[in-house]
Amino acid sequence: MKTYLDCMPCFLRQALEAARAATDDEDVHHQVINSVASVISEFPLEITPPEIAQRVYRVVADVTGSRDPFHKEKWQANQLALSLYPRLRRVVASSDDRLLTACKLAIAGNTIDLGPASKYADINSIVETALTSPLGIDNYAEFRESINSAQRILYLGDNAGEIVFDRVLIQELRRVKDLSVDFVVRESPIINDVTLADAVYVGLDRIASIISSGSDAPGTILSQCSPQMLRLYHSADIIIAKGQGNYESLNEERQNIFFLLKVKCPVITRLLGVNIGNAILMRQSTSALSD
Amino acid sequence: MKTYLDCMPCFLRQALEAARAATDDEDVHHQVINSVASVISEFPLEITPPEIAQRVYRVVADVTGSRDPFHKEKWQANQLALSLYPRLRRVVASSDDRLLTACKLAIAGNTIDLGPASKYADINSIVETALTSPLGIDNYAEFRESINSAQRILYLGDNAGEIVFDRVLIQELRRVKDLSVDFVVRESPIINDVTLADAVYVGLDRIASIISSGSDAPGTILSQCSPQMLRLYHSADIIIAKGQGNYESLNEERQNIFFLLKVKCPVITRLLGVNIGNAILMRQSTSALSD
Repeated sequence: MKTYLDCMPCFLRQALEAARAATDDEDVHHQVINSVASVISEFPLEITPPEIAQRVYRVVADVTGSRDPFHKEKWQANQLALSLYPRLRRVVASSDDRLLTACKLAIAGNTIDLGPASKYADINSIVETALTSPLGIDNYAEFRESINSAQRILYLGDNAGEIVFDRVLIQELRRVKDLSVDFVVRESPIINDVTLADAVYVGLDRIASIISSGSDAPGTILSQCSPQMLRLYHSADIIIAKGQGNYESLNEERQNIFFLLKVKCPVITRLLGVNIGNAILMRQSTSALSD
Repeated sequence: MKTYLDCMPCFLRQALEAARAATDDEDVHHQVINSVASVISEFPLEITPPEIAQRVYRVVADVTGSRDPFHKEKWQANQLALSLYPRLRRVVASSDDRLLTACKLAIAGNTIDLGPASKYADINSIVETALTSPLGIDNYAEFRESINSAQRILYLGDNAGEIVFDRVLIQELRRVKDLSVDFVVRESPIINDVTLADAVYVGLDRIASIISSGSDAPGTILSQCSPQMLRLYHSADIIIAKGQGNYESLNEERQNIFFLLKVKCPVITRLLGVNIGNAILMRQSTSALSD
């Protein structure tokens, strides 16, 4: 999707949050605001929000000198989510529809996002809400059917912490049938997005092959992806794309993609006809037709 | 108070909303975003948010050619509030503490604000909530006492629509005792702030003298106020200041000011130790000491 003008104030806000995460120096925060504001007029609306975000976070990195301002928050999120892991597994094991529950939990994990939403609520209440609330867009039946005939899944990760919830879903997918799963991480740190180190830390490498997208964009920008990633992208039977960034960069692609995300911004609510906070499990064709 | 870096993304968002109110031309919206973004680095943090907002809305006016983009919204707000007027009067007349109820309604009216909060909720539910919720900061006892010994009140208005609720409070003040009330409006249109035409339209001129601040700032910037306004400001026994803009521009002044407002932004929540949506009736001294 293209970038909307509504995204511009949001980028400026995100830049300030990243600056504050990088340093306590208020003069640097001010420099970040001024530097990002001064390049807003250079942002083309024709490219996707994650591509603009990539440019914004490069400015933040240049001004603050920090390439990974949310390092601490990511590790805290990983640890917090890992502490929940046994409980998440039990919840799945004891549910009537294990795969649906695992999907709902994976979407709930997407609440852990420092980009659009400033602070995430208590993670226990997030899990409770996920289990008791209906999906805002529900293509679960098609998802289940696609899984039945699939061999190779490409799983596009989104955030640190969230990946523990992804692990639970991947375990459930592999329990249902013998599947190969490639889990895609960002090439280098951006916002709180998952990198190789996060994936290994939470043990994702034991149940999936971890590969880098080849890009540090907080989404999946195919023109920036490595040849290896693109081969997997084109040969996968199903692509599971987590989060708004992956949605924003792939919603006009014509692959067999299922988007699993929490809706976090007004632009997406308008595009999808849903509400902030809705959990979405949506097949690509549905969205591509409605665009 | 000074301007915070958090205000900058908010100004950009407000500029976009004003641009959209002024025209449907998306190229113009984009020009407004770029023009405001390009001057953000020139905004000094030492001046108050309403002074920056004044600059922002001048840029919007210059780019869109519209000096009053919210004209239609203001008249709709006036008409909507006027339709509620008989009910507001009945609610006050039938309540145990008429003055407190009138204060709560006047604060509820401050919800009608196109600056910080994008769209206001159903006005009926706003009134219900106001009557049943406690004040977030409650200096009502001091307010009541101050009124008892006051002769001259300077009432600093905020928004169109809201002024109908102000009318109800002023009527109640004048019922309690014989008071002279000067009601201050903005010199010319900015956002949805009250101007002379709005005040006359809702009949405020029948119960108060309407005077212009002498400035189009969406707050009370004393250095921009007319000599007449300043005389009234310094001679009033009590100043009632409605809304965040008047709070932001007067919270460090040492007059006998009572701020009546709804809290609409995270910066104010942090400054006052309250929550978004809280209704505030606060004496100046309380805030000046805590600054």
